[in-house]
Parts: sequence; structure tokens; C-alpha cells
Amino acid sequence: MAQADRIIIFDTTLRDGEQSPGASMNIEEKIRIAQQLERLNVDVMEAGFPIASDGDFEAVKKVAQTVKTAQVAGLSRSNNMDIDRAWDALKYAGERGRIHTFIATSDIHMQYKLKMSEQQVLDTAVAAVKRAAGYTPNVEFSAEDAVRTRLPFLAKVIKAVIEAGATTVNIPDTVGYTIPSEYSEIIHYLKEHVSNIDKAIISVHCHNDLGLAVANSLAAVQAGARQVECTINGIGERAGNCSLEEVVMTLKTRQDILPFETDVITEHITPTSKLLSNITGILVQPNKAIVGANAFAHEAGIHQHGVLMEKTTYEIMTPESVGLTQNKLVLGKHSGRHAFIDRLKQLGHDLTREEIEKAFVRFKTLADMKKEIFDEDLDAIIADEVLRVPETFVLQQMNVSSGSFAAPTATVELVINGKPKKTAVMGDGPVDATFKAIKKLTKSNAPLLSFSVGAITGGTDAQGECTVRLQSEDGREVLGQGAHPDIIVASAKAYLNALNKIAGHTKRTHPAL
Amino acid sequence: MAQADRIIIFDTTLRDGEQSPGASMNIEEKIRIAQQLERLNVDVMEAGFPIASDGDFEAVKKVAQTVKTAQVAGLSRSNNMDIDRAWDALKYAGERGRIHTFIATSDIHMQYKLKMSEQQVLDTAVAAVKRAAGYTPNVEFSAEDAVRTRLPFLAKVIKAVIEAGATTVNIPDTVGYTIPSEYSEIIHYLKEHVSNIDKAIISVHCHNDLGLAVANSLAAVQAGARQVECTINGIGERAGNCSLEEVVMTLKTRQDILPFETDVITEHITPTSKLLSNITGILVQPNKAIVGANAFAHEAGIHQHGVLMEKTTYEIMTPESVGLTQNKLVLGKHSGRHAFIDRLKQLGHDLTREEIEKAFVRFKTLADMKKEIFDEDLDAIIADEVLRVPETFVLQQMNVSSGSFAAPTATVELVINGKPKKTAVMGDGPVDATFKAIKKLTKSNAPLLSFSVGAITGGTDAQGECTVRLQSEDGREVLGQGAHPDIIVASAKAYLNALNKIAGHTKRTHPAL
Repeated sequence: MAQADRIIIFDTTLRDGEQSPGASMNIEEKIRIAQQLERLNVDVMEAGFPIASDGDFEAVKKVAQTVKTAQVAGLSRSNNMDIDRAWDALKYAGERGRIHTFIATSDIHMQYKLKMSEQQVLDTAVAAVKRAAGYTPNVEFSAEDAVRTRLPFLAKVIKAVIEAGATTVNIPDTVGYTIPSEYSEIIHYLKEHVSNIDKAIISVHCHNDLGLAVANSLAAVQAGARQVECTINGIGERAGNCSLEEVVMTLKTRQDILPFETDVITEHITPTSKLLSNITGILVQPNKAIVGANAFAHEAGIHQHGVLMEKTTYEIMTPESVGLTQNKLVLGKHSGRHAFIDRLKQLGHDLTREEIEKAFVRFKTLADMKKEIFDEDLDAIIADEVLRVPETFVLQQMNVSSGSFAAPTATVELVINGKPKKTAVMGDGPVDATFKAIKKLTKSNAPLLSFSVGAITGGTDAQGECTVRLQSEDGREVLGQGAHPDIIVASAKAYLNALNKIAGHTKRTHPAL
Repeated sequence: MAQADRIIIFDTTLRDGEQSPGASMNIEEKIRIAQQLERLNVDVMEAGFPIASDGDFEAVKKVAQTVKTAQVAGLSRSNNMDIDRAWDALKYAGERGRIHTFIATSDIHMQYKLKMSEQQVLDTAVAAVKRAAGYTPNVEFSAEDAVRTRLPFLAKVIKAVIEAGATTVNIPDTVGYTIPSEYSEIIHYLKEHVSNIDKAIISVHCHNDLGLAVANSLAAVQAGARQVECTINGIGERAGNCSLEEVVMTLKTRQDILPFETDVITEHITPTSKLLSNITGILVQPNKAIVGANAFAHEAGIHQHGVLMEKTTYEIMTPESVGLTQNKLVLGKHSGRHAFIDRLKQLGHDLTREEIEKAFVRFKTLADMKKEIFDEDLDAIIADEVLRVPETFVLQQMNVSSGSFAAPTATVELVINGKPKKTAVMGDGPVDATFKAIKKLTKSNAPLLSFSVGAITGGTDAQGECTVRLQSEDGREVLGQGAHPDIIVASAKAYLNALNKIAGHTKRTHPAL
């Protein structure tokens, strides 16, 4: 094996990932992901786009204040206001703060979006990098839509921004258009035609519109890139970004022909993937590589043709290497506080004493109703009890009756600003009746975009975890979640969770890198 | 653009795809998929593994009898009994029938699984191909685990099977281990070292364990492969197979540097993807390329930064090119039978008169309860009314009451073998109570593996579609589905659907190509 080169893992789950429809997170949720990313040991995490909104600014600032070892990046367009605002949030990370500034370089983007000439784009890029370099030596520049940029112009821009102080130069496939052989040629071209290319790290950022983001990133690494931008579960705009777990596990599994290494602690991959799905409600399909429920299904007692005498006959990596443990019984009603806290830590939940107290009470209640408490139940308790937003609307009690002949009826009592209010409403089903009652009491008109329930663990006594997506007045998708052994109650909690999130959110803009 | 080479699309959704945990389909479901694959215009469809069970045999035979233009393949190990049985099912397709025989060639598989020497494997492969060629000139041979096979031995086997009559030689990445550059080298090696390689089509079959199945298939095409084996939605064992829609749309989108063409009618991609998810209950994640709910989300009125003056700024293919239409109102309570049948045809449902009648009655009932009927509602009606198995257990009526304080109670009446039976049971929630009542009445002990509910369309009057997975006595996952505006009733229907499927299934074995 050749000497391994180190690949910098730049996670953008909190920025590009969060731009997925329905993935928006509040500050507490972002901090929780950031802490988990630090456990996973990513090199850089992009925490947001500070100019986009006050909420984004606060989130980047809080991540910069919280994270202890990883670098923290903040995105900015190529103008002074964006860059100044980015540094205002990032400065709390000190020398680990990275300003990431971008401008589009393809003809189509320059002509239709920016309405700028090549020279204007070049000058703007250089000025932006210089401004950023005045704050920190840790400056990344991205040439948006680099893959569709004429190569001589791309080389010219990259050379100029390195001269201006960029220490990382990112060559994104913004629209998910390239294929491995072509992307490899682009990176080779830049290595040949940018005289100062050795003064910066070449970074890649691939979108997955054709399903090739991981392969493209790896081809770029083989061609000389040394930073890969990626997200957990591959979330991101449209078909998402390069999936962190796939790129990292390919590098680890194929050391023989890919002599590169990352610092990612791969055993934290599965808990990180689950935490992100829990928080965003974005499901991972069962046949997703590495983190899908079936990815290691040959391990899970699935009937195989013939006896597996040797695991490696079909297994190229172990489930343990990505932190996948069997869905085993972890706790029961006699489990104590110590075992409970221990297990939460293993699952990646680092809670305050007060949060532990709330979660423990809920755990004991659940343990009375349900014989076996699995990891997934604990995740749901945390999602439901600890990660909650301040509640404008509180569920006091509810009763529902329905069936194949009865008219479904829901009686719901909420506490709104300290005052109890109740109503009874009929609907097409028990959930419809419940939601109608809540709408009546809260006077909400937010359209329901989707609604789903998944039982968290097998067994008929499983908790139901309900996810509701509403559309807020400014067009955002807002996610609400609730867990309860009664799925109608879980539905009501999820609906109220989404309404509580809508009560108190600020608008923002999104970049499309 | 260079002259385009034609790539043969070999769909194995019905064989390798069906080996996904929980994806098993009955004959009617397989025929429905086969008809849709023919509309999609795949060149070859692998319909099953005839020796595996009587059910598999019947399914392959029925597909061979039904399909009119596509080739139909059946899998067989390299022995006479398998091959004879395969042809018995395939002969109904006449010259469009393809026998696909395989044996492992890697050291690890030969040593631990086959316990055979190189010479024995070589002789067995040649004998199998000769046997198959006695039935039909359309013979495909697969070297299982080819990617981990020593190349000189692989070349020797491939040369020998072509001499013996194989017209397609498949080089599978059985364990999802390779990367594009390596796979490309393997194909180049075979083209150089197999003297008669021009007498056969080189095929590739990639698994997605590292997320690289599509990129590997494309690299192999660039190196000389002319058949790609793939599945709809990329389903298949573990992390699945190469995704048909991704490979086809990459070839279509990047004609400029990938001068290859397929005969797939890409406008049928989205309906095919949806039909498969409906039948198998295997969800597609929102960030899945091409067919994920967010894949074209820039189209769906999602807030974008700045005004898109020019679509191609961010769009590399149109949603229309993959048959994606907006989730628009299609029918209401005043829609007639003609509009209803028309829309079903557009959605890929080709029904008998009797099936249409059943579905139309259900449609009218739903239209009374729900103002707007969407495509997804029609899909659910078909899944629920038409694709049902014979019912041992029939839901007569049910009533449920529950809430935050009341003890959840379900009263359920079933008709079992013509006799009504009813009971009332308390549970932890309304679904738990309902399932307990059904278990009591049906005396079933099948463990519940998972349970989920998704509302099919937005709006609080949406139908709930429930999916239940049970484990049968022989360890299989059995899927049940039910749709109803009341999700508790939908849950009961799904549970009974799974129990009805368990009543009357035969065992079978699975290959692991």
C-alpha cells in the first residue's frame, strides 16, 4: 500500500443539507447535530449562511461557540456585507473559523443570474477573498457551477483567488451534471494550468442529480482533490449532496487501490445518520448504501441460499465498523438512572441535568406501558421531550372515537397562553377530526403538506412516531414530530409541534451552491 | 457527437429486486410490474429463479406468456435440473426466452461456498452453458463475484463459456466492492485477453454497497460493456442494485460525452417507480436521484434565491422527461367512468372490466368523502382493491375509542370462512388494541416487524395508507397494505392483508448474484 494521503472531510449537513425541502432546523437542533459531527470527527463543518437570516446568524455563532476541535465554516456571497456578517458569527471559533465565499463562473450563471461579465466576476471574486483574508487566513473560495465553466476562465479565476489569499479552492458540480471521467479531467486541467495550485487545497462539492455524487468525488480525489464536501445521508437540495458515509467507507474499504485516509470515526456513522433523520424527519430508504435498514441485511438473520461458511463471502465491511448494533433490548422498567444516562451517551445524546430529568420521567412512563425499551424508543423520547420548541399551544387532553361505521369524532383540550380551550369536531377519520379540532382552537390556516406515522420498534406495543409537515405563510415547510403509544395522540403532538415552530420564525434566503 | 452505441437494458427488478427484504411479490403483482416494464421498453426482464419455488416457476412462466416484445430471462445455477426447470418456464416466450446461468469464480466463493477447484468450476460452467444452448441460442452466463476473481482465471472461464454457446457474458460486482477505475480495467482486460470476446455481449451487474453501482456500470459501458443489469428504484439485496433510472437518464443527459443510447421510454420512469413502491411498500427517499420526491424540487415552487430567469441555470433535465407531472387534481365526485379509466391507463394500470368496476365503486365512495382525488389516491385504490390476495379473513366492521386518558379499546368483527366472529380488546393505543383483537380472532402469532402510515396526499381529508410487515413462520417478511380515510381502519386492513398473504405461500431459496 502506498503512503496514505489525508482527505479533509468538510460536512455541509447544516448548510446545504438544511436547504433540503423540509429539513430546516432550529438552533437547538443544529447544535445537537454539530456536537454529533464533532464526535464523528469531521474536519470542517459548514454551519450555515449567516447573512440569510438572524436565525442562521445565531446558529452559526452558537456552533462556533460550542464546537471545540472542528473547523467551522460560514457561507457568504462575494460581497462585503455577506463576508463581514459571516465573520461576525465565525469569529467565536477563532483560528478554526473559515469564511467560505462564492460566485458563479459558468456562462449560463454569469449571463442569466449574475448579469455580469467575466472581468466583473473575476474582480468580485478577488475582492471578496481579500476582504475575507483580512479577517482570517482560513478562506475558501467556490466557483459556483464550476463544472459547466469554460476551463481557461475557471483556471484564471482559481489562480487569482489563490493569489488573493484563498487557502481552499472548491470546484463544485452545482447542478449534479458531471461524470467521474470528466470531473477527473477538470481537476487534472486545473493542476496543470493553475501555476499556484499547490498553495491551496482543491476541494470538491458534488450534487447527486444523476446518482453520481460519490463516484465523482472519489474520481476527483484520485485526480488530486484533497477536500470532499458532503452531508450525512446525502441530504441536500434536489437529489442531495455527496453522502459522507459512502465516501468515507469506500476510502476505508478500498485502501488497497485508494491510498487515502480520513479522520472520521466510522463507528459514529449510524448514530449520526439516525439523529439526523430523527431531527429532520427525512427518511433513509432501506436500500441506501451504508445506513439503509437493509444495507447489512445479510447479517440480520435474513435467509441466505446455502450456509455462509465465511462472512467475507458476501460482506465487504462489518456492521460494527459503521456503529450498527442489533436492535437489541437495552432497558426495561427496572433500569436505573445510571444505565439510562449511559445508554443515551452511547446514542450520542449529551444532555443537561434538567433534560435528563425530563427524559427519565418519560422513560419510566413508557416502561410501564411497554415491556422492552429499544434504542429507537430512547431516540424518540429525546426527540419528543428534549428537542421541543417553546410551546405556545399545549395539549391538555383528548379523546377520539371512530370506526368503520361511527362518524369519527375528536374532543381536544389545549392550553393556549395559559388558558384552557376545548372543542369537539367530526372528521373523515380520527386524525382528520383531531387536526380539525386543533385548527379550530389555534385558528391556524397552515396547509398540511404531508403526514406519516412509523412505529419506532416492532411489537404491537410500539410507540408511534408521527411526522407532520405544514407550510408556513412564507412558503417554508415546517416539520412537527410527536411520539406516543397511541398514534392519534402522537399525531396531535406532531401537529402542535409544527404549529409551535411556526409561531416565531424569521425569514431567510438560500444560496444554491 | 459520435455515432451512438446501443446499450441493452436488462431489468432484474423481478428477480434480484424481489430478493430485497420485504419485497416479495405474488404472481399478479409480478405480472403488473412486467407489463409496466414492457411499457418502459426495457430490452430484457429477468422474471425470477424458476427452481427456487413453485411460485417462482409459475411467475416466470406467466411473465413469459404475457410479455409481448421484451426478452424474458430466468435464472439458474449451473446444473441440469435448474436449467431444465428454467427452460420449462421460459419456453413460452419462444425465441425471446433467455436462460441465465451462473457459478462463482472468485477464490473465496470457490473455497468456502462451492468447495470446488478451478477446473471443476470451469467444467461445470461449460456444461451448464451447453445444456442451456441445447434449448435456446439466447444464453447468458454470469461469473458470480467476478470482481474479486483472479483475472486470468476469469478470462479463461469467459472464453470457454463463449465457445460453449453463451451469447451474453456477465461480469457482476456481486458484493458491491469495486470502483469505476478498477471496474473499467477489468472490462478492458477481458477485451484484451479473451480472444472470442467479440462473439458475445459484455454485461455488467453492480451492487450498491458503497453507493457506486451506477458509476461502475457507466465506467464499464465506457470500457466496452453493452448490457447493463439494473432495477427500478435500485432495489435489491442489501444496498440494492444499479438503479435503472439513474443509468438511463445519465446516458440521455450526457450524450455529449457518453455516446450511447437505450430504447427506454423515459417518460414511463416515474409511473414505474411509483407502481413498484406501491406494490412492495419499499419507500424511495426524498433525495433519491431522478425519482425522489425532491429530485425536481426546484420546479415545485420551492423558494429559490433570486429569480430563475433561465431554467437550465439549475435544471439539467426536465421533470416531464421522466414522466413527472405535478400532483394535480385529476378527478372529483362528478368525474365519469371514462375519465376514470383514462387516468388509470395513464398511470400504468391496465385493468380487466371487473377490476375497473370494483375500483370505480371505491373511487365514488372516496370522492364523497374527499373533495379532490389525486393520482396517488388512485394508485392507493388499485393497491387496495385490485391487487388484493384471496381473503381468508375479511373485515366486517370495527369501532375504536382512545385518547390521552381513556383506555384505548377496539371492537372488531371479522368474517372467517364465512362465519362472523367479534371481540373487544384493550391496548396501549388504538392500533395496538385493533391488532390485538385481530390476533385474537385469527389466532395468528406472526411477529410484527414494522408498521407505518403515510397520508397519500396533502390535506386533512387525505386517505391514510398503512403498511404492516409481519414475519411468517419460515422467516419471510410479509407485507400488508390498506388504505382508508380512517388510519385505524387502514391499519386493520393492512394487518389482515398480510395475514391473508401468509395463508397460502410456498417456501423457496434465493441465489445471491
